[in-house]
Amino acid sequence: MPELRKDPVVGRWVIISTDRSRRPTNFTPVRVEKTGSFCPFCPGHEDKTPPEVYVSRPGGGGPNSAGWKVRVVPNKFPALQIEGALDRRGEGLYDKMNGVGAHEVVIEGPGHDQDLADLPVEHVVEVLKAYRERMVDLHRDRRFRYVLIFKNHGAGAGATLEHTHTQLIATPIIPKILQEELDGARRYYELKERCVFCDIVQQDTADHNGRRVVTMNDRFVTIEPFAPRFPFETWILPRRHDSSFQVVADEEEFHDLAAILKDTFQRLNRALDKPPFNFVIHTAPVAEGDLEYYHWHLEIMPKLTRVAGFEIGSGFYINPTPPEDAAQYLREIAVEA
Amino acid sequence: MPELRKDPVVGRWVIISTDRSRRPTNFTPVRVEKTGSFCPFCPGHEDKTPPEVYVSRPGGGGPNSAGWKVRVVPNKFPALQIEGALDRRGEGLYDKMNGVGAHEVVIEGPGHDQDLADLPVEHVVEVLKAYRERMVDLHRDRRFRYVLIFKNHGAGAGATLEHTHTQLIATPIIPKILQEELDGARRYYELKERCVFCDIVQQDTADHNGRRVVTMNDRFVTIEPFAPRFPFETWILPRRHDSSFQVVADEEEFHDLAAILKDTFQRLNRALDKPPFNFVIHTAPVAEGDLEYYHWHLEIMPKLTRVAGFEIGSGFYINPTPPEDAAQYLREIAVEA
Repeated sequence: MPELRKDPVVGRWVIISTDRSRRPTNFTPVRVEKTGSFCPFCPGHEDKTPPEVYVSRPGGGGPNSAGWKVRVVPNKFPALQIEGALDRRGEGLYDKMNGVGAHEVVIEGPGHDQDLADLPVEHVVEVLKAYRERMVDLHRDRRFRYVLIFKNHGAGAGATLEHTHTQLIATPIIPKILQEELDGARRYYELKERCVFCDIVQQDTADHNGRRVVTMNDRFVTIEPFAPRFPFETWILPRRHDSSFQVVADEEEFHDLAAILKDTFQRLNRALDKPPFNFVIHTAPVAEGDLEYYHWHLEIMPKLTRVAGFEIGSGFYINPTPPEDAAQYLREIAVEA
Repeated sequence: MPELRKDPVVGRWVIISTDRSRRPTNFTPVRVEKTGSFCPFCPGHEDKTPPEVYVSRPGGGGPNSAGWKVRVVPNKFPALQIEGALDRRGEGLYDKMNGVGAHEVVIEGPGHDQDLADLPVEHVVEVLKAYRERMVDLHRDRRFRYVLIFKNHGAGAGATLEHTHTQLIATPIIPKILQEELDGARRYYELKERCVFCDIVQQDTADHNGRRVVTMNDRFVTIEPFAPRFPFETWILPRRHDSSFQVVADEEEFHDLAAILKDTFQRLNRALDKPPFNFVIHTAPVAEGDLEYYHWHLEIMPKLTRVAGFEIGSGFYINPTPPEDAAQYLREIAVEA
């Protein structure tokens, strides 16, 4: 059973994989499975993954057969274990609990090489609906306080399988950065009685003709944030206040989100020659209900620079590209409608 | 002039290099200068760096001539600029100030290939004294609130020059992780009236015969922390309470610190085949004086796994090596006295 352990100084929880301990000699460079080698996510290989927990199979057909558009399966090598009680306990001054949680994979489409920038908007809508359905379902389990939806794309960003996919991890804790955002946004609200992200959207769309805005549609806006940690760090935010991704409900909203995702990734891919990247959906924990002070959004971090340990070790980032410049490059990229 | 900008939600300051903006096409992989190519840090090339601000030259000789053991020079491409006022100002809801600060390089020795694990203990003492002298001197400038001492070793950890060196950045802000540690340690002290790091040292040296202890001498201990973010993350702490690295004063203390650094790096190098790594010295801000609740230490992060963006984006780490296992591997490594 993996363990969740808490740093006694800063309160950060980490997952320690106690079952499959990696020895010093196991740290050879990770390789991404290349096209040509066997892919467990390709159609026809449905029996090579655990049975699906969600599927979009518009043409019909039995479970775990081919013909799907989007398929969600449990991760074959989960970081957390689904069965068991949390069993919170101390060990002297330290705190820990069992590594209970869910770890799933959203296979975004049958095409091995098609990522979110390549798929039709209607297909991206199906991917987003899969995210939301799994999030809603996992939150029925009262042990879980957060469902983290994230994507590692490319070897440089930590992906180990090439076939385009997203991961979901449901955890009994709120990840540290999300908790910091909730706390920071609450403090701002206490001071101003306004949502800080609403203020960001308002200022960035108005200010100097939107010099940090990359693209926009009726419901969503893509910006380069004012104080980005990384070159071309990119955020997508709903233009109207909504604290949770789960409340994305009507078809128009799904359509606009899918359209701006596709648009944004086309720009990043063309400007930066298909960079490795990570994205993380930042949303309010479901148990909190609707929050006036928090505003869900998606943060994309292209992996362009090598430095990492120093920044992680100090929390201090040096970014060589001003967001105003990055936004201008990305605005000038031509994209398909 | 670079800018320091603050994220309005979580309060994290970042340096934005506005002068040398990197365009999309500039993000080709960083290469470390290899042995054989010209090295500006090697003896005889003293005129290829800015003039030295500190030197250990026991045999005598003029400034910026060969014959030195340790040499500190301003970074030729500084992330912050030494001249100017902070000029703190707002921009709507955002906060920023001028990127004023110091950025120096400690060239640890004349030997191009000799790192801290290879140098004699007496030489490592000279390196540590250089760190402290520069820290004391930079703190005379009242604009600076923190002096960050860190090392990027190896291309995988962000080094761009191979010749062994450490960096110092003096900043008008306290880097986020250091501020979080100060806050967390203060909260623990308010609750317990004890320093949390003193408790960590006490528990980890006693608990189960010190199963997270790697090595120890009279004044210092090396541990694998209870909730490490990374495999083989390693901390060196003074065994007695001291809030600041600057108070390391007598020769015995310098000797013991140098000895445990060399010992620890020998173990990491042998266990992990000379891994790229980062280290950061965590110390109380000088302006705070002696703090009962904070305890300086050094954190070493070998760079063994590729993932980074996701962890940075969520603050959630998955570590495949329990610290108890890592400590055992490192304890079993034979080292030179």
